[in-house]
Amino acid sequence: MKFIRENDKLYIVDTTLRDGEQTAGVVFANSEKIRIAKMLDEIGVNQLEVGIPAMGGDEKETIAKIAKLGLNASIMAWNRAVIKDIKESLECGVDAVAISISTSDIHIEHKLKTSRQWVLDHMTEAVAFAKKEGVYISVNAEDASRTDINFLIEFAKSAKQAGADRLRFCDTVGILDPFETYEKIKAVKEATDIDIEMHTHNDFGMATANALAGIKAGANFVGVTVNGLGERAGNAALEEVVMALKYVYKRDLGIDTKKFRELSEYVSTASGRQLPSWKAIVGTNVFAHESGIHVDGALKNPQTYEIYNPDEVGLERQIVIGKHSGTAALVNKFKEYGRALPESEAQELLPYVRSLSIQLKRCLFDKELIYLYEEHILNKKVI
Amino acid sequence: MKFIRENDKLYIVDTTLRDGEQTAGVVFANSEKIRIAKMLDEIGVNQLEVGIPAMGGDEKETIAKIAKLGLNASIMAWNRAVIKDIKESLECGVDAVAISISTSDIHIEHKLKTSRQWVLDHMTEAVAFAKKEGVYISVNAEDASRTDINFLIEFAKSAKQAGADRLRFCDTVGILDPFETYEKIKAVKEATDIDIEMHTHNDFGMATANALAGIKAGANFVGVTVNGLGERAGNAALEEVVMALKYVYKRDLGIDTKKFRELSEYVSTASGRQLPSWKAIVGTNVFAHESGIHVDGALKNPQTYEIYNPDEVGLERQIVIGKHSGTAALVNKFKEYGRALPESEAQELLPYVRSLSIQLKRCLFDKELIYLYEEHILNKKVI
Repeated sequence: MKFIRENDKLYIVDTTLRDGEQTAGVVFANSEKIRIAKMLDEIGVNQLEVGIPAMGGDEKETIAKIAKLGLNASIMAWNRAVIKDIKESLECGVDAVAISISTSDIHIEHKLKTSRQWVLDHMTEAVAFAKKEGVYISVNAEDASRTDINFLIEFAKSAKQAGADRLRFCDTVGILDPFETYEKIKAVKEATDIDIEMHTHNDFGMATANALAGIKAGANFVGVTVNGLGERAGNAALEEVVMALKYVYKRDLGIDTKKFRELSEYVSTASGRQLPSWKAIVGTNVFAHESGIHVDGALKNPQTYEIYNPDEVGLERQIVIGKHSGTAALVNKFKEYGRALPESEAQELLPYVRSLSIQLKRCLFDKELIYLYEEHILNKKVI
Repeated sequence: MKFIRENDKLYIVDTTLRDGEQTAGVVFANSEKIRIAKMLDEIGVNQLEVGIPAMGGDEKETIAKIAKLGLNASIMAWNRAVIKDIKESLECGVDAVAISISTSDIHIEHKLKTSRQWVLDHMTEAVAFAKKEGVYISVNAEDASRTDINFLIEFAKSAKQAGADRLRFCDTVGILDPFETYEKIKAVKEATDIDIEMHTHNDFGMATANALAGIKAGANFVGVTVNGLGERAGNAALEEVVMALKYVYKRDLGIDTKKFRELSEYVSTASGRQLPSWKAIVGTNVFAHESGIHVDGALKNPQTYEIYNPDEVGLERQIVIGKHSGTAALVNKFKEYGRALPESEAQELLPYVRSLSIQLKRCLFDKELIYLYEEHILNKKVI
């Protein structure tokens, strides 16, 4: 077993290649899966959930290939709580198995059509089998967030006793808020002292906040995907969780964040899901300033509107010229062109800038700005 | 003054037309602004912040036009804490003014290059002027989240005394988490008993969670934008806040959510910002299921993987056929085609489906599925 757990350490578990690919319509090529695994390993992610061996064929082959790459990250495969599935995982040579089963009554009654006892029995049987084989074991409580908390605690205790190394708490339908998440994780942690992984979904836009709330309550593993890819509205995004830990919680995990943008672009292309320009942390727009007041502040001191430097995530600051620009932005742009624009000329130029931006319904290119200057300021002076 | 405040009511304040348009590169046409205002009013949003009259020209004209539409929503305009700005707003005939000034030391020292006292003096002077004119007043504490809490309370008290109707708490750089947000809002509310509006940004992916945390702590106004449009990574999204209030907090505001998808599409087109398919609440993918286990659950009982029906937000459920499909999805698809697919044939067909999906790197169209069936199952039977 490759995976060494240290006290007080927080582990990043990336599931771009499993939950990410499970997104309806997303299929990674095998070479893309390998490249993504390598990139995640290079930036320092601790564990990669790379797929579902029980699917067989290509999927299983690729998992086996990734397991043989000799990465620093622990390689995990996803399984139902079924011994046949786990055998397929073991054949791939992975370091770790995720063993998944639903724990909420709505799933047990309507999907599994069985009983809580059946769930406990199947889970412990699967865990005991994997334990004997010496792999690291995460037991996934699917729909944990809608599970009766007493049953969830019983489930976690049984899992631990059967040999599980941790519990994955799945907010499968993304229904929790951070306060409820905190209470639930605290209750499970206090009752069982088992290692807990947060696995949150973004159905109500709270995946990242919920993952962080779980960590605050004692979870020491956090499941993420690049760009927040994942079922429906996706999972907690790797880049959001890591940067929020660093700057909101002052907890630097030592991840090489400078490669975030590159990684996001690659996963965006491989998944066929275009990254929005306003995507938190990695969107091209998140360091773009246009409005007069923001540009003025950012030029005087970037920290007025930015918490960290754009190059920390592989981006660049942009001053965009458009409808909301003020004179400070114009003066600054002309300085970039190597020309000093007096404040009076900036005042004179501004209405033309705004008017053209409104007409074109977008911001202006440098050439357009220079042309406006030549037409309305320079030529007037000459005449 | 049109705006009537009721006890214990929670108000939605949409700023798509102000903070949303302030996004670098976004410019709405005036006709689009009017259409968006009408749509927001129709679905039941309480107050619309529609722009910045001090920009003059087209912007001011459109604000005046919106103010004259006779909407149910209160119409608000944004202003610096400058009497000249407020006069421009009054000329537009708006019901309400937002008066904005920075309160954090980093903004006061590095952007305004002045003192806390100067900020208090300018704010109270502007508020007193607006109060005299009889409009509803929101005082915006810009960068409130990084403001010394004692100064923020002093600021809020002074604002209230000068005649402000509420305080807008701006997490301008999106640096808060829900727990800190809760503590700050509770402290301001308890010390001042002023109405508070949450205005949160999504820089670390927590805008929606933070807005809701503020409401939990006593804020009774919440600022949002359609699709979460706004500076950098955007603001809390209207659709996320409203649906989370309804389903996570069991607080139905009576908003006509069935028009959310239509509204999102319109704003997406008008802003030139393509909506990602996985956008929480309104993305086309959030009710799409592909993976075997999810499809099986969703077909048996949608509530296993869905919290509400897709038509509540103007979407439809989709069962997508691809690499992660199981036999339940195939049987269901053929039922839709009016044909019964026996389980044995579904088992036989599945590897061909997965193989083609992997080759094409996407999910399959109905025609492709039927072709696979004809080629590998039907023709074999005939032969």
